[in-house]
Amino acid sequence: MAPGILSSKAPAPAKPAPSNPQDDIQRAQQHDLVLKTFRLLISDLCQQFNGGHPGGAIGMAAIGIALWKYVMSYAPLQPNFFNRDRFVLSNGHTCLFQYAFLHLTGYRAMTMDQLKSYHSSRWDSICPGHPEIEIEGIEVTTGPLGQGVANAVGLAMATKNLAATYNRPGYDVVSNHTWCMIGDACLQEGVALEAISFAGHLKLNNLTVIYDNNQITCDGSVDLTNTEDVNAKMRACGWDVIDVEDGCHDVDGIVAALKRAKSSTDKPTFINVRTIIGLDSAVAGQAEAHGAAFGADDVKRMKRAYGFNEDEYFVVGDQVRQFFSEIPSRGEEIVSRWNDLVERYAVAHPLLAEEFQRRLDGKLPSDWKSLLPRPEDLSDKPLATRASSGLMINPLAKEIKLFMVGTADLSPSVHMAWEGKEDFQHPNLRTTCGINGSYTGRYIHYGVREHAMCAISNGIAAFSPGTFIPITSSFFMFYLYAAPAVRMGALQRLKVIHAATHDTIGMGEDGPTHQPVELAALFRAMPNLLHFRPADSEETAGAWIAALEAEGVSSIISTSRHKVPQLKQTRREGVARGAYVIQEDEDAQITLIGVGAELSHALGAATLLLEKNGIRCRVVSFPCQRLFEAQSLEYKRSTLRRHQGIPAIVVEPYAPNGWERYADAGISLRRFGHSLPGPEAYKYFGFDVDSIVSKVLGYLERIRQDELLKREFIDL
Amino acid sequence: MAPGILSSKAPAPAKPAPSNPQDDIQRAQQHDLVLKTFRLLISDLCQQFNGGHPGGAIGMAAIGIALWKYVMSYAPLQPNFFNRDRFVLSNGHTCLFQYAFLHLTGYRAMTMDQLKSYHSSRWDSICPGHPEIEIEGIEVTTGPLGQGVANAVGLAMATKNLAATYNRPGYDVVSNHTWCMIGDACLQEGVALEAISFAGHLKLNNLTVIYDNNQITCDGSVDLTNTEDVNAKMRACGWDVIDVEDGCHDVDGIVAALKRAKSSTDKPTFINVRTIIGLDSAVAGQAEAHGAAFGADDVKRMKRAYGFNEDEYFVVGDQVRQFFSEIPSRGEEIVSRWNDLVERYAVAHPLLAEEFQRRLDGKLPSDWKSLLPRPEDLSDKPLATRASSGLMINPLAKEIKLFMVGTADLSPSVHMAWEGKEDFQHPNLRTTCGINGSYTGRYIHYGVREHAMCAISNGIAAFSPGTFIPITSSFFMFYLYAAPAVRMGALQRLKVIHAATHDTIGMGEDGPTHQPVELAALFRAMPNLLHFRPADSEETAGAWIAALEAEGVSSIISTSRHKVPQLKQTRREGVARGAYVIQEDEDAQITLIGVGAELSHALGAATLLLEKNGIRCRVVSFPCQRLFEAQSLEYKRSTLRRHQGIPAIVVEPYAPNGWERYADAGISLRRFGHSLPGPEAYKYFGFDVDSIVSKVLGYLERIRQDELLKREFIDL
Repeated sequence: MAPGILSSKAPAPAKPAPSNPQDDIQRAQQHDLVLKTFRLLISDLCQQFNGGHPGGAIGMAAIGIALWKYVMSYAPLQPNFFNRDRFVLSNGHTCLFQYAFLHLTGYRAMTMDQLKSYHSSRWDSICPGHPEIEIEGIEVTTGPLGQGVANAVGLAMATKNLAATYNRPGYDVVSNHTWCMIGDACLQEGVALEAISFAGHLKLNNLTVIYDNNQITCDGSVDLTNTEDVNAKMRACGWDVIDVEDGCHDVDGIVAALKRAKSSTDKPTFINVRTIIGLDSAVAGQAEAHGAAFGADDVKRMKRAYGFNEDEYFVVGDQVRQFFSEIPSRGEEIVSRWNDLVERYAVAHPLLAEEFQRRLDGKLPSDWKSLLPRPEDLSDKPLATRASSGLMINPLAKEIKLFMVGTADLSPSVHMAWEGKEDFQHPNLRTTCGINGSYTGRYIHYGVREHAMCAISNGIAAFSPGTFIPITSSFFMFYLYAAPAVRMGALQRLKVIHAATHDTIGMGEDGPTHQPVELAALFRAMPNLLHFRPADSEETAGAWIAALEAEGVSSIISTSRHKVPQLKQTRREGVARGAYVIQEDEDAQITLIGVGAELSHALGAATLLLEKNGIRCRVVSFPCQRLFEAQSLEYKRSTLRRHQGIPAIVVEPYAPNGWERYADAGISLRRFGHSLPGPEAYKYFGFDVDSIVSKVLGYLERIRQDELLKREFIDL
Repeated sequence: MAPGILSSKAPAPAKPAPSNPQDDIQRAQQHDLVLKTFRLLISDLCQQFNGGHPGGAIGMAAIGIALWKYVMSYAPLQPNFFNRDRFVLSNGHTCLFQYAFLHLTGYRAMTMDQLKSYHSSRWDSICPGHPEIEIEGIEVTTGPLGQGVANAVGLAMATKNLAATYNRPGYDVVSNHTWCMIGDACLQEGVALEAISFAGHLKLNNLTVIYDNNQITCDGSVDLTNTEDVNAKMRACGWDVIDVEDGCHDVDGIVAALKRAKSSTDKPTFINVRTIIGLDSAVAGQAEAHGAAFGADDVKRMKRAYGFNEDEYFVVGDQVRQFFSEIPSRGEEIVSRWNDLVERYAVAHPLLAEEFQRRLDGKLPSDWKSLLPRPEDLSDKPLATRASSGLMINPLAKEIKLFMVGTADLSPSVHMAWEGKEDFQHPNLRTTCGINGSYTGRYIHYGVREHAMCAISNGIAAFSPGTFIPITSSFFMFYLYAAPAVRMGALQRLKVIHAATHDTIGMGEDGPTHQPVELAALFRAMPNLLHFRPADSEETAGAWIAALEAEGVSSIISTSRHKVPQLKQTRREGVARGAYVIQEDEDAQITLIGVGAELSHALGAATLLLEKNGIRCRVVSFPCQRLFEAQSLEYKRSTLRRHQGIPAIVVEPYAPNGWERYADAGISLRRFGHSLPGPEAYKYFGFDVDSIVSKVLGYLERIRQDELLKREFIDL
């Protein structure tokens, strides 16, 4: 066993095979110089604008050398090489760690000038305060702690699925490893703990989490808040554990651990690397090293101690450049060998290779829409829109392998499982209930882990553009648990589609804990996210089509638990425009805006208002605010006709926040729900047809009496 | 060791001390009858409306007998008895379990009629689909999985703090235990995993989690998604673990385990109880037993198998009534003994007893506001409003023991730590960084566990009305991680105050992952929640006063990272009204609505518009939408003056959703942020004074040219 490595695993090769002791000494000297250069570079980068996070990046320097110089398979000149190892920096505040190694290993965009733009006022900096997916060499945007761990699990799952689907003996066309760097904090975040438990279950042996164990967070030492036995906890979760004692200097020990992790046979690996935050600074090993520059004097002192010139900044000497110089060409060789492999694969397995190439291209088959039911195929019988969602996505998921469909333990409720679906599972798993699977499976039982489900799905989507479209599913209410991950997907413009069921008080007896009220306001306000509430099967088709056609956004399709009528007037093309007129009346006195499961209530009220009261209503279906916003002013006006003086009333049992843009009054819900059967809940809160009619009549009366001012939005 | 108990702990007394074998047999027969009666009662209750969750409640029946008959200290006739044991049903969907035991043990409100209202259309049912805090005998509202575990940790912390503060030798006036029931799913949720880790760290030996280990969730067997070694994981987290093998029948074994847990010396205890979901139904041990009634035929079959009359429903026989009959009077004795103790305590420790009584009464001292800086005490120098927040809450927290103030590892950033604060920690903890504490401490390092922090705080607040006011703190962005718990606090109308710092793009370099955009829309839409954005120290005072004075709501006070000017025009009384005029002009052409850290930008723009362009502006400060909504129509109109034809423009770098109610146009942020220094970020997105001026001028020009329609909200 290599010095400094304590492991629960069988012994494995220890060091990068040394040729002789002379080489060992030389390599140690090289490492020492690179480490010092790196630490000073980080210190200088933080010092120039007196900000940023130096300590973690410095503490992890030796880990970086081990990864980028000795272990990871990647190609700096072709950053998007398909079979590259994926590296995720879950402790994203240490981004300088990654930026500096991208610079040293020859990523072209990461110039020294760019490095120096960290914390500058350059709007086109590629060194933002946390790593962002748009930057070459960055796999996922990180920063909100714990997310990266779950993303890494998703990346590793993507590899497993592709490998199981496309590799053939002698042709491992997908064989990359996922490396995830974490800090003490990531191990405290629930989303990471969910993902860790799940990765152990799936036995993802192509995933290695490297723990920068410096025992420091912002408040002080970790033992202020966390005194658990982390290695024992990881083992209990089904992980192999390797310890590295001197993570600040022992590059060889780290390399040995990483290589052993990569060769793990049936478990993900957790490498617990002891480091010192802000090593060799005056605040080494202290919380003060975390989030502030060290001060000019201390950086000078460090330089003197290291034998560097204290008046030189951002120094990367020739020997250090030389140390990394081989990496770009090594990367080209890696790519070239893989290209050769894929060429031979195409000869040996032509059909499979063709399909594989389509996955690389990241496109849906051109005829995918033909798999969807046409309007005339849809039954006119009432159906819950959650079931309608199944009618749309099930045939797609069944036929098209880029769909990875999961649920947070709500298979019976969400209708996402297609006939004959195979589960994504370790092939050796034998469950008590007898439902097994393999890594070729594309239906994922995530367990009751909504947050990890969505963060893992971001990782799957980030594997390579368009290679996968992940679908998640749960009750709409529980997307609040997952909201930070939904946000990260939207921020990264990842095409992830969330099938959220049981929306509004219509979901019934489960009561206010399960009845969303404020949640639509969140997702409608979230940039790069389409939030749909389709009204029936036809609109559900429209929502899925719009979500799948939209580029650069994530989507939530929010559906009803209960059966809703099929409305003759709904059109899938209408959904694509966000809102559209489903009942026009040139001489209308009022427009009713209906949404999702309650659109039929608005329509019913419109009918009753005409029949009983002679009130002429027009009705607009409004499934997606963001798509409507993207329409022309002309379309918007002709849809709403408020410019013609026709007031609009929105009918939706959600908080009205945001509807004031489109309506003059709201029949909305400004309080939490109540445990009642769905129809009773609608009545209790005034969303049944009779209540709507009476509220509309009251509103019109107040207008008649000039009680209302046109610029004031009224809650009815 | 008792049969069926495997433990890592030293042996302890096994059974409820039996007098002789005859008693044992008799008790076993009693238990058998009660268990059968209970299971059939649950089956009938679900059958009547063909819905609900029977399986878990039935599987846990023996645990219920052990708890309510033999172990818990409580008083059905005085449900709010201060020193009662707290019971939390984290797997809240099994609520019938608790409702039925509340009925059997004599809680007056829980009549058989009420039991039968489960899933009925009775709006005044006290048997909603999940337990709700308003109901006698229910400590916290549960349902969203995992929350209850964290609530229980908070309840146990509350006890520890009160006991350490007020108990004296011979006078354990606070000595209650917290029991938390969980299912398989709770152990998968991140919030529970965070709380479990934290409870182990705190060595809360007054907390017992009872795991209804039926190995079934909605999708099937738990091993579909979770194959970790849960006992090893709990031990790694610092918990004692006890196994119970036959949790469906072995009441004595469960009692022994519970009693041993209660006597644990220095750890929380996890009791892993093997049960069978839906025992004795046709779907016993299957996912189908979870969330649907068993069907009339099967319930009849169960009744026959149990020797009951298949045509009788909701049967609770005399023997069963007899079995529980002593409990109300036992409860009265418990209360009476405690009252005696408190009386003697008042004699022995009069000053302390007086203070203790005030905690029971749950009131802030009448002169609490005198601890706050007065307007004239505030410096006129620029200050970050996060620092202003500290100026307000620090003196209160220092002097008034009902404040429990915590942070998710951001002590240096959030300004919540007061001089001389003592940490809430196990007294024997010795940390590496040398910051120690005890259970009398009231400053809580939660670690990087935002979600658990807020859910635990709900538990602390729920201990007894007004006995504690918990304060949480983190960056505003990370309240998205905690949002489900913030929601649960609001739903339960718990007075929990969240000090959220680093709001808007003004927080700067950390970039879009840390810059909230859509988050205000969520919290402004959330019922029972006050969301404040104060503009300077004076408004921050107003926000804290309003949050502390408001009853039945939670609050978020959202503050700036960066220094903001102290504005002469701001008034704490204005904050209490939600919005108020800070610069009036009878002949104004436009109203600028400014909010929080950017109010000064709006004011600056107003000044420039007048000076350079002769445009007369009025300015409204708008720190809290919900409080403004509660004002009279007259006040609202006089504040906004839109009814006089003066258009209003809101200036806030957040998604505009909801502002359309108060403004005609928005200088808002409809995309994610960007990593730039704060002032640069403001410029980049057009929120600096010059950009605002030019947007306002553009807007006025469009009005002049009649391009805009008054009913259309415009994004500028």
